[in-house]
Amino acid sequence: MDSPSVRVVACDIFGTTVDWYTGVTTQVAEVFEALAVSVDAGEFAIQWRELYGPSMQRVRDGERDWANLDVLHRESLDGLLRRHDIADAVDEASRVRLVRAWHRLPAWADTVEGLARLRTRFVTATLSNGGFALLTNLVKAAGLPFDCVVSAELFHAYKPDPRVYRGAADLLDVARDQIVLVAAHTRDIEGAAAAGLRTAFLERPAEKGPHGEADRASDGSSDWTASSFLELADRLGC
Amino acid sequence: MDSPSVRVVACDIFGTTVDWYTGVTTQVAEVFEALAVSVDAGEFAIQWRELYGPSMQRVRDGERDWANLDVLHRESLDGLLRRHDIADAVDEASRVRLVRAWHRLPAWADTVEGLARLRTRFVTATLSNGGFALLTNLVKAAGLPFDCVVSAELFHAYKPDPRVYRGAADLLDVARDQIVLVAAHTRDIEGAAAAGLRTAFLERPAEKGPHGEADRASDGSSDWTASSFLELADRLGC
Repeated sequence: MDSPSVRVVACDIFGTTVDWYTGVTTQVAEVFEALAVSVDAGEFAIQWRELYGPSMQRVRDGERDWANLDVLHRESLDGLLRRHDIADAVDEASRVRLVRAWHRLPAWADTVEGLARLRTRFVTATLSNGGFALLTNLVKAAGLPFDCVVSAELFHAYKPDPRVYRGAADLLDVARDQIVLVAAHTRDIEGAAAAGLRTAFLERPAEKGPHGEADRASDGSSDWTASSFLELADRLGC
Repeated sequence: MDSPSVRVVACDIFGTTVDWYTGVTTQVAEVFEALAVSVDAGEFAIQWRELYGPSMQRVRDGERDWANLDVLHRESLDGLLRRHDIADAVDEASRVRLVRAWHRLPAWADTVEGLARLRTRFVTATLSNGGFALLTNLVKAAGLPFDCVVSAELFHAYKPDPRVYRGAADLLDVARDQIVLVAAHTRDIEGAAAAGLRTAFLERPAEKGPHGEADRASDGSSDWTASSFLELADRLGC
């Protein structure tokens, strides 16, 4: 597909742009080691991430008022610590540090160079369910070349709610089909397409660690597919 | 004043970070020359800017619903063209181009280097009455080293409405006194201080062109004063 009218490349963050599994696992391991807690950090990171979807779903369903991702992460962390019977071992300061782990995650090896190329031709923006402060901290720490931070928090809704995709287009003052949503997740791609955006599936087979099964491009359809931001830059003529 | 707790440097844009007078004058001159309109571009830019305050005041007073700065700029442009009796000479495409002039303005000579230094220690953000798309375009075109774009549009209110200053602190998840608002305008400084932010007055004597009178630091009080972003970086220990 040609891309003459694309003006904005809007990127999902967790898994698509940064490697949450490695970043969270590393930081969980540091905290647990300091506390002499013997729970596997990688499994803990996976379990924590698995609570992400259901926690947002309660906001989407109106079962609870809007809360940003730091709040949801904290609540699911507290529950997970209880489940592992280590609630007493992990103090408040450690919990705050764990929630902040999601603010500081390593970029995939191709991200910075690929985004920098995309930025020469398009406006590059985040479009993530992470909160605005979380995303600002994450983008700064990882040195990601985004022109602006756009967060689901600005719309008090979580992807794949169409208000997030449409809100981003309105805020950036472009037509919906002038934004490409880049994501490694089928549900996000489908939500963006349903809202009128164009879509690029970025395959990240290692997203959920060595034992997890990541979404694949073939699980759905998208306007473009790529295995890295570099390949996406090629596809979009940058 | 010491600055141990400052975490965010939030910058006014028009006049403080970029030279709107030169940028708008140059682009108005180009458009008028192409149309063979013989109105002085510099005076036109000043007159247009003078309509900025009253146009926002109507939103603040609730006389009209929220409208972003592009809309206000367009309305005041249309009125100003009528006032100069050149409404028939300036076609739709030229008006669109003129409104977009505010999206593409040159940085002051010290801005990029000073902001880059501030960014090494603090989160740097815009905090402007310009719309989100306008600011994103402007920051990108001028290569300004901001970590994120924060616009009054996110709060549907215009500075000095306290909702803008407080909204920025909430969005960035910092206490109000952990943000320094940097501005060349007494009214902005006073509004930020009243909302609980810290303030830095940046003197820009040329802001309103060779004949205009810019605000001076001595017109009010602020936590810091500086004559450039470089001097501000010195003041804040960067």
